[in-house]
Amino acid sequence: MKLLDGKLIADQIKNEIVTEVVNNFHNKGLSAPHVAAVLVGDDPASQSYVTGKEKACREVGFISSVYKYPANISEEKLLDVVDFLNADPDIHGFIVQLPLPGHIDAQKIIERIDPLKDIDGFHPVNIGKMVLGLPCFIPATPSGIITLIDRYDIETEGKNCVVLGRSHIVGTPISVLLSRKSKHGNATVTLCHSFSRDIPSITKEADILIVAMGRHGFVTAGMVKKDAVVIDVGIHRIPSSETKSGFRLKGDVDFDNVSRKCSYITPVPGGVGPMTIVSLLQNALMAAKNKII
Amino acid sequence: MKLLDGKLIADQIKNEIVTEVVNNFHNKGLSAPHVAAVLVGDDPASQSYVTGKEKACREVGFISSVYKYPANISEEKLLDVVDFLNADPDIHGFIVQLPLPGHIDAQKIIERIDPLKDIDGFHPVNIGKMVLGLPCFIPATPSGIITLIDRYDIETEGKNCVVLGRSHIVGTPISVLLSRKSKHGNATVTLCHSFSRDIPSITKEADILIVAMGRHGFVTAGMVKKDAVVIDVGIHRIPSSETKSGFRLKGDVDFDNVSRKCSYITPVPGGVGPMTIVSLLQNALMAAKNKII
Repeated sequence: MKLLDGKLIADQIKNEIVTEVVNNFHNKGLSAPHVAAVLVGDDPASQSYVTGKEKACREVGFISSVYKYPANISEEKLLDVVDFLNADPDIHGFIVQLPLPGHIDAQKIIERIDPLKDIDGFHPVNIGKMVLGLPCFIPATPSGIITLIDRYDIETEGKNCVVLGRSHIVGTPISVLLSRKSKHGNATVTLCHSFSRDIPSITKEADILIVAMGRHGFVTAGMVKKDAVVIDVGIHRIPSSETKSGFRLKGDVDFDNVSRKCSYITPVPGGVGPMTIVSLLQNALMAAKNKII
Repeated sequence: MKLLDGKLIADQIKNEIVTEVVNNFHNKGLSAPHVAAVLVGDDPASQSYVTGKEKACREVGFISSVYKYPANISEEKLLDVVDFLNADPDIHGFIVQLPLPGHIDAQKIIERIDPLKDIDGFHPVNIGKMVLGLPCFIPATPSGIITLIDRYDIETEGKNCVVLGRSHIVGTPISVLLSRKSKHGNATVTLCHSFSRDIPSITKEADILIVAMGRHGFVTAGMVKKDAVVIDVGIHRIPSSETKSGFRLKGDVDFDNVSRKCSYITPVPGGVGPMTIVSLLQNALMAAKNKII
């Protein structure tokens, strides 16, 4: 068994991005890629995500701005913020951190973002282009999974691939990416979800198993084919008396037992997580390059 | 075995559309839905498709216009045509018949169409919204398949569904529609294509089998599970000494043998074909209603 070391690959890619920022921006007298995040309300998880993204931006030499608004901001005002960021030539890409308060139609906000600045890849036009195999921003988590597959030279062509979970930001897009005609595609993909029956009989046939169910320890060794590639998107705080923090991070896969059976597996933490953030940076770099090309 | 009679259902729906045109347009003093088709060059197949669409429009009381241009029309001029149709308030929806001559970037033309008039549902924003389960125009063939499933009360929830073929206009969208969270979705979908291995072992597990490979007689009885639902999107002209025309229309499925084994099957012709045209009419009606609501 070999680890798909997302932390290692993410660090490599960050270094590559730093080099690009120096060569293609600083050395050409251009200002570095500038990423903005819009944060509404004071949800601790959202704050923590945005802080993590800011930190990652700084690490690679990007400029990063956060626009904070109270939870009671009106939808209209937030649409104005999006318009403002769309129009600002100094900002290359931005995200609106989700979830948004209930009185705001998140889809309306997403659709207002200029698709060329939509580095989350959530705008329908980016999703449509992804399906069609056209250049676009691909959501960060599926993009990170494809990059892991690329860097570890995992063959996907003709492989049976099973995706557990059909969310708009992970399961559905990764199922599309792996099945479409492309270098890291051409797999035979089965997309499973909460209505799927006898999931173990399906996963047991998977050469590549992508798990994004959001259920701790859902995938056990008995559900996995020998020598499969297992990619675990889940992340859960599990109480633990062995750590100072009082918890451990665990995934959707029973790592200890599954790792003995498979050929490759992502650890949690340190697998898909770091790849997600670095994919957002790659999208931001692409947005900035679109501006200069 | 029961036939999924596309001709019958399409005729029923045409009657329903006629009633809507009378009640919601004529009786309210509004002009009927107006559909335009843009036809470039003199490819006989394209001409025949456009004629078929015009005929269907007339049958349900729509207004229909065809804009014909020579094969050497420039891309710029064709973009102007699209702009003109986008801007014309009297035209509710239109299609640009594909394929286009090689010197024209078809994707550029498609992306220029106002998504609210894109009754083919090929614009990336419509494809993206389809993936997200948002209101949109769904391409006619997958939409027609869903309507057949609806009218024959075929249960999809939790069923194993196998789609053969991953084209942008049939296989990929139907795989998305059947797996997403919706009334005629919630199936466990496997999407197969030219790189898939051992397709018979996959199709044999399918409760619902959608065949859009474009290969005559590809699916044989041995590949089909007993009592499966089989939907055949293929259409091929096969030479025949038994018909006046010298050919017969056949599908991707060996109908004679497969029909003995399955619970439901679409005939070719008279299955998916008529549903495709009527779905385009439904999209046009929706486009016209968007205008009046």
